[in-house]
Amino acid sequence: MKKCNLESEFEHLEGYWSPRIVDQVNDQYVKVAKLKGELTWHKHDDEDELFYVFKGNLKIQYENGEIELGPGDLHVVPRNTMHNPVAEQECWICLIETVTTKHTGDVVSPLTKSLAEQAR
Amino acid sequence: MKKCNLESEFEHLEGYWSPRIVDQVNDQYVKVAKLKGELTWHKHDDEDELFYVFKGNLKIQYENGEIELGPGDLHVVPRNTMHNPVAEQECWICLIETVTTKHTGDVVSPLTKSLAEQAR
Repeated sequence: MKKCNLESEFEHLEGYWSPRIVDQVNDQYVKVAKLKGELTWHKHDDEDELFYVFKGNLKIQYENGEIELGPGDLHVVPRNTMHNPVAEQECWICLIETVTTKHTGDVVSPLTKSLAEQAR
Repeated sequence: MKKCNLESEFEHLEGYWSPRIVDQVNDQYVKVAKLKGELTWHKHDDEDELFYVFKGNLKIQYENGEIELGPGDLHVVPRNTMHNPVAEQECWICLIETVTTKHTGDVVSPLTKSLAEQAR
């Protein structure tokens, strides 16, 4: 019977754009990540991706607009939709996504992390 | 492109043990609920259930022990495991569970809410 504390997970997390898997519910991973700067334009063909902002602000750019998220905001990026997360200042987020979801979709960027790298 | 703010969702939520669906990611619903008192012993045969404590404290009783959760704590109740959530004082939680998960499993109690009752 394990539990984790999100604040504590963030405090021990090093580096930006390096999601860390903290738990799993059904076929979804729960991940924490610290963001700063921008990731890369990408999409996940068959998988939605939930963003929950724990601290700071995050902008998610879409091809036809963008959405601004602040602390406590929750937003789901729909599957098969090009997007690019941008954090002007450090931002702490929690992600819920399918266990097979790849960090930057089919795009490989210098920031891409494998699922193995996201495991504890 | 919608977002929701968890704090605001809780502020508008009335009643205890009445989960409200606020979003969906893949085949999982995200729900908010205010708890006070105890629910009922039950299990979900094939579905895990994630509890995230937003405010207050929550105890989850198991047949062989219990786990105490505080603000920011995240815990997954494994599928097919009898459990009973107990909140001595008001507690605000976020739940992640499969879209088919029934509130109190196959047990029907006076607190049972249908999925239709959990929709906005």
